[in-house]
Amino acid sequence: MKNILIIGCGLLGSSLLRRIHKKKLAKKIFVYEKSISNIAKIKKLKLPGVIVKTLKDGIINSDLIIFCTPMSEYKRLIIKIDKFIKPNTLITDVGSSKIETTKIIKKFLKKDLNWIQSHPIAGSEVSGPEHGKENIFVDKWCVLIKDQSTKKNHLNILRKFWKKIGSKVVVMTPEKHDKIFSITSHLPHLIAYNLVKSAQDFEKKQNFGLIKYSAGGLRDFSRIAASNEIMWRDIFFNNQKNISKAIDLFIKNLNAFKKDINAKNDKSILKKLVQTKKVRSKIIKLKQDIDKPDFGRN
Amino acid sequence: MKNILIIGCGLLGSSLLRRIHKKKLAKKIFVYEKSISNIAKIKKLKLPGVIVKTLKDGIINSDLIIFCTPMSEYKRLIIKIDKFIKPNTLITDVGSSKIETTKIIKKFLKKDLNWIQSHPIAGSEVSGPEHGKENIFVDKWCVLIKDQSTKKNHLNILRKFWKKIGSKVVVMTPEKHDKIFSITSHLPHLIAYNLVKSAQDFEKKQNFGLIKYSAGGLRDFSRIAASNEIMWRDIFFNNQKNISKAIDLFIKNLNAFKKDINAKNDKSILKKLVQTKKVRSKIIKLKQDIDKPDFGRN
Repeated sequence: MKNILIIGCGLLGSSLLRRIHKKKLAKKIFVYEKSISNIAKIKKLKLPGVIVKTLKDGIINSDLIIFCTPMSEYKRLIIKIDKFIKPNTLITDVGSSKIETTKIIKKFLKKDLNWIQSHPIAGSEVSGPEHGKENIFVDKWCVLIKDQSTKKNHLNILRKFWKKIGSKVVVMTPEKHDKIFSITSHLPHLIAYNLVKSAQDFEKKQNFGLIKYSAGGLRDFSRIAASNEIMWRDIFFNNQKNISKAIDLFIKNLNAFKKDINAKNDKSILKKLVQTKKVRSKIIKLKQDIDKPDFGRN
Repeated sequence: MKNILIIGCGLLGSSLLRRIHKKKLAKKIFVYEKSISNIAKIKKLKLPGVIVKTLKDGIINSDLIIFCTPMSEYKRLIIKIDKFIKPNTLITDVGSSKIETTKIIKKFLKKDLNWIQSHPIAGSEVSGPEHGKENIFVDKWCVLIKDQSTKKNHLNILRKFWKKIGSKVVVMTPEKHDKIFSITSHLPHLIAYNLVKSAQDFEKKQNFGLIKYSAGGLRDFSRIAASNEIMWRDIFFNNQKNISKAIDLFIKNLNAFKKDINAKNDKSILKKLVQTKKVRSKIIKLKQDIDKPDFGRN
C-alpha cells in the first residue's frame, strides 16, 4: 500500500490512523474530515497524517480509501468522488450493516467494482478522535463482504491490510452479515436504548429517583444506550428488515417468559435460566470475553 | 453486636463473613450452611467464623441473624427457627424483593417484629463462597425495609450495622422497593436472559456460529444472563406483579421503536437515542458508574 486516505476521523477513523502510522502500513496517510471541531481535536492531539482540504486532493493521491463516516454520508460522498477517482483505487468502509450500503455503492459509484466493504467488530460507547485507540482492532474480528462482483485480488489486498492491522479476518455475504449482526449487536443496542427509555417513562410517573439504584443492572445497559445516535440511527434504518424480525423473536420470548412467571412455572423458568448460561461458557471458550465490556459500535 | 449468625454462605454470605471479621463487628461469627460442597470450600478457603452443625446452635447463641439464602428457603427456615429463637434476637436478610418475603415473615414467624429486611445493592454473576469479597458492600446502597410494625430502635441498630460494613443506607417501604428494583434490576436481568435465549433460537435455525461475533453487544448481556438461576427464579416469582408491568411497558416501547424504524421516522428515533444518553450522564454524576460492570444480583 502506498498512500491511504481516511474519510471521517472519529473513533474508528482516528484509531485506524494511529494504527496505520504505528505499523508503517502507508507511505502517506491523508485524512478528510468535514467537522471543524474534529479537525481542531486532531491538530491538538498531534495525530499523524496530512489533513487534506478537499476530498479530491485525498482521492487522486491515494491507493486505498477507507470510509469511516456514518453510513448516511456514503451516498453524498460517492456522488462526489465518482467524478475523479482513478480506476485502480481500492475503497473500503467500516460500516456496521451491509445490504443497504451494497445497494448504494452499486447504484452511485460507477467504478463500484473496487469497493470491498469491511466491518471491524470494535468500538466503544464514546465517539470522536480523542477516544480512538491504536490497538482497538487487534485480535478482533473484521468481516469482509464478498458478492458475485468481488475481485479475488482486491479481496486479498484488503485481507492482508486488516491482518497487518492486527485483526482476524472472515469473509461473508452482505445477507449473512446483516442477519448475524442484527442479533449479536443491533438488537442488544436497541434493547438497551428501550430499557433506559422505559426507566425514564417509569420515573416520570413515579419520581422515585431510581437512577440512584441503577447498580443492579440498569447502569450497565445505560453504557450501551450512550452510543453515537447518528451511527445507530443509520444502522437501525439500513438493517430494518432483519432488526424487525429480531424484535419480533425477542418479544415472543419475553411474552412466554412473562407467562411462565405469572403461572409460577418453576420447571420452564429454571430450564430457561440454566440454558442461557451455556452461551456465556461458549463466549469465554471462544475467547470473546474481556475484563471490561466495550460494547462494540458494530 | 455480640454474636452474629450468617445463614447461607454463598457469594453474599461469605462477603459479609469476611467483612464482619475484618471490621471486628462481632465477638463471634457463626455460619450455618447446608451445602456440603460449600462447607468444604469454606474450610479450604480458611474463612473466619465457626460453622455450626445445627441451626439451633447458631440461633440461640446469636444477637443478629442474617439470612443469605435464596428467598425460597425462608419459609422452611423460619418454621424451624421459630421454635427456639429468643425474643430479643434481631433478624435481617439480603433478599432482592420484599413484598412477598414480608408476607412470609409475618405469617410464619411468631416473633416477626424483630425482622427488618435489608437489600444491599451488590453482587456478581458468579456464585459461591469462593467469589465473595470483603469490600463488596463498601460505598454501595443498602435498602432497609420499614413498615408499620418496624421498631425504631431495631432500625437504628441495623442502620449502624450496615454503615459499619461500609454501605450507604436508605429506608423505604416494601412496595416502593419492589417497584424501583423491578425497573433497575429485575427487568434488566430478565431482558438479558431473553436476549441470550433469542440468540440461541436464531442459531438453532441458521447455524451461523454467531457467538463468535458476540463482541458487539451480546457478549456483555451474556454476563448478566449467567447469574444464579435459583436466586433469579425466586426474584421473578416474588416480584411477579411489578415485573409483569415492567415487561408490558418495555414491550410497548419496543413496538413503538420498531414502528419508527420501519417508517424511517428520523426525528422520533434521533430524539429517543439522544434522550437515553441523559440517563448515562446522570448515573456518572451520581457516582453510580464503575470501570467494570458487576451486574448486581439485586
